[in-house]
Amino acid sequence: MGKLSHLDDHGRAKMVDVSDKDITNRIAVARVTIHMRTETLALILDDKIEKGDVFSVARVAGIMAAKKTSELIPMCHPLNLTSVEIDLTPVENPARVEIEARVRVSGKTGVEMEAMTAVSVAGLTIYDMCKAVDREMSIGEIRLVKKSGGKSGTFIRKE
Amino acid sequence: MGKLSHLDDHGRAKMVDVSDKDITNRIAVARVTIHMRTETLALILDDKIEKGDVFSVARVAGIMAAKKTSELIPMCHPLNLTSVEIDLTPVENPARVEIEARVRVSGKTGVEMEAMTAVSVAGLTIYDMCKAVDREMSIGEIRLVKKSGGKSGTFIRKE
Amino acid sequence: MGKLSHLDDHGRAKMVDVSDKDITNRIAVARVTIHMRTETLALILDDKIEKGDVFSVARVAGIMAAKKTSELIPMCHPLNLTSVEIDLTPVENPARVEIEARVRVSGKTGVEMEAMTAVSVAGLTIYDMCKAVDREMSIGEIRLVKKSGGKSGTFIRKE
Amino acid sequence: MGKLSHLDDHGRAKMVDVSDKDITNRIAVARVTIHMRTETLALILDDKIEKGDVFSVARVAGIMAAKKTSELIPMCHPLNLTSVEIDLTPVENPARVEIEARVRVSGKTGVEMEAMTAVSVAGLTIYDMCKAVDREMSIGEIRLVKKSGGKSGTFIRKE
Amino acid sequence: MGKLSHLDDHGRAKMVDVSDKDITNRIAVARVTIHMRTETLALILDDKIEKGDVFSVARVAGIMAAKKTSELIPMCHPLNLTSVEIDLTPVENPARVEIEARVRVSGKTGVEMEAMTAVSVAGLTIYDMCKAVDREMSIGEIRLVKKSGGKSGTFIRKE
Amino acid sequence: MGKLSHLDDHGRAKMVDVSDKDITNRIAVARVTIHMRTETLALILDDKIEKGDVFSVARVAGIMAAKKTSELIPMCHPLNLTSVEIDLTPVENPARVEIEARVRVSGKTGVEMEAMTAVSVAGLTIYDMCKAVDREMSIGEIRLVKKSGGKSGTFIRKE
Repeated sequence: MGKLSHLDDHGRAKMVDVSDKDITNRIAVARVTIHMRTETLALILDDKIEKGDVFSVARVAGIMAAKKTSELIPMCHPLNLTSVEIDLTPVENPARVEIEARVRVSGKTGVEMEAMTAVSVAGLTIYDMCKAVDREMSIGEIRLVKKSGGKSGTFIRKE
Repeated sequence: MGKLSHLDDHGRAKMVDVSDKDITNRIAVARVTIHMRTETLALILDDKIEKGDVFSVARVAGIMAAKKTSELIPMCHPLNLTSVEIDLTPVENPARVEIEARVRVSGKTGVEMEAMTAVSVAGLTIYDMCKAVDREMSIGEIRLVKKSGGKSGTFIRKE
Repeated sequence: MGKLSHLDDHGRAKMVDVSDKDITNRIAVARVTIHMRTETLALILDDKIEKGDVFSVARVAGIMAAKKTSELIPMCHPLNLTSVEIDLTPVENPARVEIEARVRVSGKTGVEMEAMTAVSVAGLTIYDMCKAVDREMSIGEIRLVKKSGGKSGTFIRKE
Repeated sequence: MGKLSHLDDHGRAKMVDVSDKDITNRIAVARVTIHMRTETLALILDDKIEKGDVFSVARVAGIMAAKKTSELIPMCHPLNLTSVEIDLTPVENPARVEIEARVRVSGKTGVEMEAMTAVSVAGLTIYDMCKAVDREMSIGEIRLVKKSGGKSGTFIRKE
Repeated sequence: MGKLSHLDDHGRAKMVDVSDKDITNRIAVARVTIHMRTETLALILDDKIEKGDVFSVARVAGIMAAKKTSELIPMCHPLNLTSVEIDLTPVENPARVEIEARVRVSGKTGVEMEAMTAVSVAGLTIYDMCKAVDREMSIGEIRLVKKSGGKSGTFIRKE
Repeated sequence: MGKLSHLDDHGRAKMVDVSDKDITNRIAVARVTIHMRTETLALILDDKIEKGDVFSVARVAGIMAAKKTSELIPMCHPLNLTSVEIDLTPVENPARVEIEARVRVSGKTGVEMEAMTAVSVAGLTIYDMCKAVDREMSIGEIRLVKKSGGKSGTFIRKE
């Protein structure tokens, strides 16, 4: 472990200089789990079977958030994302929703933060739409599960 | 448990009508924990003792994100926040950073989502600034810990 | 007809001063029609029956755009919208989608532009999602159909 | 007609993957017509002759909106636009303003939505600045008139 | 002189809590001077006499920036501005443009930053539109000239 | 001196067409000076020695503003910045803070406006955080000090 790349020699924040990095295809995958009461999941699923709106709204929110990442995370580079996909999977015992985002770019730096921001905001959106019936829901373990492209090679999280 | 308030009778998403609600002082407090390796926390703390920049940047990111909540969460109402404060606390064994956001408003609806968005983005910012040395960091258990003001009364999460 | 209120005595643009206006409940309703080929509507409806995603995405886009109105329309006042609802109705012969937005606020100025922006962006979103199969779709007659609250009284468009 | 490219095999919205498309010069041209009363057009023109502010403000709004397209249209890719031009032409009998936007990019996907968003917001801005004297104005037939560059070839709308 | 109100007792940044302040009418006026070569001003004025576009674009940019202030200045409170007006005055010997912004709000905190942001961005816009002919232009002495409303009373800068 | 490049032959604003320009590495450096009372600088420095928050917040604000430039300056092209660095230097006699921003991009047009926007917003942020103790602070002489890359060659301001 060396030093934090977003700090200069005096410990001051900077946006890392990627001017001389190569443009390559880069992919990142992130996941989050939303924990909730069994009844809350049932309400979402009941709706989902018919109209799917809670999941649809969360998916749109996540995709739009991925595009806003560099506005939210101060040292992130703006990037022209070429693909964002979000999956939401309901799981029982215990009741939860698993969210996975896959983001791609052809650029000079990776899209880990975009994938992590996408699942975070998708998760917050589910919380928002269900909070009136279940304030104790929690959004847990936002994590990077895969990253490829770029000089540092492929990363796959052990889960 | 009744129904999801953000869906109309046909299951379609809407922004809940709060036109006729009272303007009251509302507070929400949310927390998140960022899990990391001991060495990562040491790097942050080493910096913190001198300049505090990782925590400073995360705090600014969280405050600015609180103000962006209604742009991120589709069904959230825009609100004129009157106060946002964010605390970051390093904790060892296991190594982690605890983040707490307290948000206030004088308005017709609560600020739970603003507090939760603030801690999420502060956490993502720490991840971003440290990811080059520790990709396995995770952001866990984003949760509402307190809420007061408004018709539904005071909520305090059991922790 | 007097003069344009957004221009000062020298014809220069300004944001109209509403400081001394009363805070009242204000409502605006706007509509737009998206014209398309019969096959295009069939594709949307086929999807709609199962998942509703084209309409869901357009609805979310319209609601989020209503909140962005003062960022888009230079002389618009920022407002804390209290309600946004969007209906999308497929109609045949000729094939089209009718979109209606109803926006409410408790504020010093009306929400006509918010309702019109909402239907415009919802319509553009439908165009975007279907343009690969039907580039000749058009978005027509964005219009204010109703407005109430405020000093100028109630307006209802003759249709 | 096959299927909607913005939906996956389960009918769920996604941002289409353009990672492997070529970077080419792409152009799109869109138009809209704003219908108004003869007196309203006279007021705009009277101002225009002297100061041009209604048209100037609408032009700036349209150019800035083109740059915001990927924030408004959920499945749009962010793009670094290389040119945006907007023409506003007053026409009499019946009184109207014709708006045309030409947008260029050197990128992996086209700029149809940017051109259509530009004319929509320019049109909404004219409505906003004149609505106090003419609420019945309407914004009609937002349409793509030309598109070139990219694998699908040149499209010219028959008008 | 006591302490900086945007820092807590540990020197950490926070958004000052204005929850308990009164809603009053508040006004702020700010000014900036853009210094340029005589020929540059002549080019702007030549255009201004005919179309006024440099000044029109700068005015729109300033008004829109006033509304974006809380997105730019981290500790600023979001506010629903009720009025923004911007004057641009060309002055010779030495050649310069004087910009003044007047911003009003009915709210719990003042609009000094909104007025100062408005003149800054209007000035930057003039620089942008003229930089190809005069890179040595400078934007100088952004300053608050007046402030009224609120508990701290009226401030008028001595000039 | 020829004509203003952001105006077409009729004096109307447009975003300059850079479609056919080369992608090159471009750098711009801008500076600003914030003038203040000796006591104000002492308060900032007192804080700086311990926590650095005023300068940290201003630095983050400047970096984030650089990324927002094309949203603020109407005719600016959106660009994927590859590096932003901001230095803040306290100077005594007379008391002031010097701010310098260095911005880099690999793109078709330069980043002068990004560097100038960064120092402006960093300066405004210092004003905001200190205005309660010193309303007479001023932000002066925002200026481009260096620019390189691109067809017009290297520019260095004589200071």
